[in-house]
Amino acid sequence: MAENEPQKSAVYPGTFDPITNGHLDIARRALRLFPNLILAIAPNPRKTPLFTLEERLEMIRQATEGLDGLRIESFDGLLVDYVAQKGASAIIRGIRAVSDFEFEFQMALMNRKLDTSIETVFLMPSEEYSYLTSTLIKEVASYDGKISTLVPKPVTEKLREKYGSKAS
Amino acid sequence: MAENEPQKSAVYPGTFDPITNGHLDIARRALRLFPNLILAIAPNPRKTPLFTLEERLEMIRQATEGLDGLRIESFDGLLVDYVAQKGASAIIRGIRAVSDFEFEFQMALMNRKLDTSIETVFLMPSEEYSYLTSTLIKEVASYDGKISTLVPKPVTEKLREKYGSKAS
Amino acid sequence: MAENEPQKSAVYPGTFDPITNGHLDIARRALRLFPNLILAIAPNPRKTPLFTLEERLEMIRQATEGLDGLRIESFDGLLVDYVAQKGASAIIRGIRAVSDFEFEFQMALMNRKLDTSIETVFLMPSEEYSYLTSTLIKEVASYDGKISTLVPKPVTEKLREKYGSKAS
Amino acid sequence: MAENEPQKSAVYPGTFDPITNGHLDIARRALRLFPNLILAIAPNPRKTPLFTLEERLEMIRQATEGLDGLRIESFDGLLVDYVAQKGASAIIRGIRAVSDFEFEFQMALMNRKLDTSIETVFLMPSEEYSYLTSTLIKEVASYDGKISTLVPKPVTEKLREKYGSKAS
Amino acid sequence: MAENEPQKSAVYPGTFDPITNGHLDIARRALRLFPNLILAIAPNPRKTPLFTLEERLEMIRQATEGLDGLRIESFDGLLVDYVAQKGASAIIRGIRAVSDFEFEFQMALMNRKLDTSIETVFLMPSEEYSYLTSTLIKEVASYDGKISTLVPKPVTEKLREKYGSKAS
Amino acid sequence: MAENEPQKSAVYPGTFDPITNGHLDIARRALRLFPNLILAIAPNPRKTPLFTLEERLEMIRQATEGLDGLRIESFDGLLVDYVAQKGASAIIRGIRAVSDFEFEFQMALMNRKLDTSIETVFLMPSEEYSYLTSTLIKEVASYDGKISTLVPKPVTEKLREKYGSKAS
Repeated sequence: MAENEPQKSAVYPGTFDPITNGHLDIARRALRLFPNLILAIAPNPRKTPLFTLEERLEMIRQATEGLDGLRIESFDGLLVDYVAQKGASAIIRGIRAVSDFEFEFQMALMNRKLDTSIETVFLMPSEEYSYLTSTLIKEVASYDGKISTLVPKPVTEKLREKYGSKAS
Repeated sequence: MAENEPQKSAVYPGTFDPITNGHLDIARRALRLFPNLILAIAPNPRKTPLFTLEERLEMIRQATEGLDGLRIESFDGLLVDYVAQKGASAIIRGIRAVSDFEFEFQMALMNRKLDTSIETVFLMPSEEYSYLTSTLIKEVASYDGKISTLVPKPVTEKLREKYGSKAS
Repeated sequence: MAENEPQKSAVYPGTFDPITNGHLDIARRALRLFPNLILAIAPNPRKTPLFTLEERLEMIRQATEGLDGLRIESFDGLLVDYVAQKGASAIIRGIRAVSDFEFEFQMALMNRKLDTSIETVFLMPSEEYSYLTSTLIKEVASYDGKISTLVPKPVTEKLREKYGSKAS
Repeated sequence: MAENEPQKSAVYPGTFDPITNGHLDIARRALRLFPNLILAIAPNPRKTPLFTLEERLEMIRQATEGLDGLRIESFDGLLVDYVAQKGASAIIRGIRAVSDFEFEFQMALMNRKLDTSIETVFLMPSEEYSYLTSTLIKEVASYDGKISTLVPKPVTEKLREKYGSKAS
Repeated sequence: MAENEPQKSAVYPGTFDPITNGHLDIARRALRLFPNLILAIAPNPRKTPLFTLEERLEMIRQATEGLDGLRIESFDGLLVDYVAQKGASAIIRGIRAVSDFEFEFQMALMNRKLDTSIETVFLMPSEEYSYLTSTLIKEVASYDGKISTLVPKPVTEKLREKYGSKAS
Repeated sequence: MAENEPQKSAVYPGTFDPITNGHLDIARRALRLFPNLILAIAPNPRKTPLFTLEERLEMIRQATEGLDGLRIESFDGLLVDYVAQKGASAIIRGIRAVSDFEFEFQMALMNRKLDTSIETVFLMPSEEYSYLTSTLIKEVASYDGKISTLVPKPVTEKLREKYGSKAS
């Protein structure tokens, strides 16, 4: 019987530039299935992120306080190598829309090709976050639009600093 | 620490009329994440299935012999009620294509509305099964086409009986 | 100057078997743009609706009480002929998903071919109704699932009657 | 050098219930690539077609008069078996929209599985036919809508007969 | 009765770099529904447009001469703020394809979140413009391809100037 | 009779930066339909390719050795002009996914607008290559991931050189 085996752990990777309420929603859902979850920040130097890795780490730490079982790390290199090294068996990805779906499937098939022992698990965010992307958040914040219900509080503050505005 | 909690269990529902190698692929992947998996057959009387519930149960039992942790049941009524009654926390669904994705999302959002404590988990079958549907299998078998690499052996035999052909 | 021309009117057609909160959401949004809106019920005898035309009319009347500018009618024949006869210039359609989109575009292009003077206007329902369809509602109600937050009150009651259940 | 090999031939299968200007457009495009083209009518008894196989054959014959290199046949059984028996190397399919695309890909992958020597070739109809389906044509004709620019002349006449209307 | 209320006005925003016949088609359709339409040019400095804001304004002015009820402006900042300031109730967007649809829905849901009083209205261009994008036009023009049936005359001339070619 | 006309020839254009096993799969399938096939490399200076045109040509030459009927060229300017100049009647494109589909259709409709005598022919790669893109290959190779089953041998070697790694 498998009843008392230790829980599988999972990795939720992303750029999180910055983390949104949609990302937090997926992390909470994943934690109900995988009590040991690593939120893994990809540096993503190619896309020149708005926030440094350290800023992103710090915002996520503040936004996820109290979420039991969640660890926050950054990683470099191939995702599957990182996942294997952590002893995790699953990659968590949120999908909201058809366009997400295709890109995510391509990535998942490539990752399966690179390491057949790791499964990608797709979760669906709450429909109220179905339109949320970090890119859109940054655009709205840059024009001083109201984002306080879309991102965690520390992110609202940090975006306000970056854009020297009263974003709230 | 969550390390030694009992494993979450999951339900993989479907009509399985009949079960294909694509369904088996998803069941195997799900078992790596959820060591207690219930494959739950929906009677689906509206679509008038080719095989009776009993025939479907029997084929699945033969096809899944040796898969540890898998139970096979049938259910009636609302899926979320059945899942809750089984103490499971997740519904497993395979998605192969964009059209799957939209229907599955609609179902998953409705199920979440009906019971917020149950999460739908989407897994991706091996790309070699991306085109497999029970409907297509039945059509090919009815014309005596070769299906032996697409469904488990007991299904090939049962389809041959149904269509009185040499389907192989 | 066009400032004081009479308002254009629009037709919102559908089977409404039964009307859902998603349909009401679209009707309210349409009324903000087209103060004279006709909600036009298609008999749809081919799909054998659950509710008779009279039942659908009655439920919609009760559900839309107090919505100024909305008229409720039924129609038969080609939609574009009906729209032209009413002197309306637009057909209102809600789109929620990619699969909606393609079918709706096909219909809209055909309607444009049949009458170039009528424009189809697509509106987006609130994301909380993005998964709602009359078909899904009927399925959930038939299993006695909770639908009271998804359809107007008169529809909940009528569905309860139909399915002899305590649907609430 | 391959310059003087005999031309490959191709099969364009469908239900053609009835043939539309969109189908004719695809047939003409296919003929420019495959000078020996067989338009192959599937009986499709499951969907209970509006027109008998003989009526469909007759309408197509009249509509394609003068198209050099086109043969018209009907077939039963597996499409790939028919194509192989004809010595053809390609199946022609028109795709207009994303929903077409997914279904067509599923069929094409299954056909490739059944016979790896046959290739499915996708062609794009003129954008003016992107919304045309036989189903839509029949619906419009049944309401006496104008279809004369959407189907060949013999089809307009035959639809008029069927629906006892002045469809034109 | 709503019969004599002043007409609602609408905003049709875009980068229009440059305006195409597809954009003009949408503007004309929108004017039939909203007799007061503002075509609002977004500066879009991030994407480094080919034409300056002034050049774009000038080309649009020439291309839309004689379109009653159309005003041409440019705007900066959040679109919803601009729309509210103009007293408009609707944002007009053309959608041609599934990929448009998803991006447009994401934008529309975000805009609705930022200002619930503004509705996004989706219109369908004529199918003959379904493949037209400003990006594609510029690419074709840069290779001296024939674009004169795809963009208004002043745009053809301006593109010819830019690319020092005989684009026609 | 058309039986002995010379074969139509076709052009398979792309950036091929670098060529993958998916591209080779499409080229082989195209050769079965069009015995005279030109693989035509677009310089693509805008996207700053990883490999020079010469490197790409050389890798393709090595990877396609023994493929009868295939010529390898590079071209500049409008694709349709190049195709016409070569006397070819078809453009070959592989489509793997819905997102491909939409972009490819847009391009194909534009190309048809520019030259109505040239047909775009869509072929489906083997499902085992459905997730392969040159971009993904470069990303995996840059992290020293295993790519030897995804690209031809000369490409594996060249990528190893570029990234100074043991990519294999």
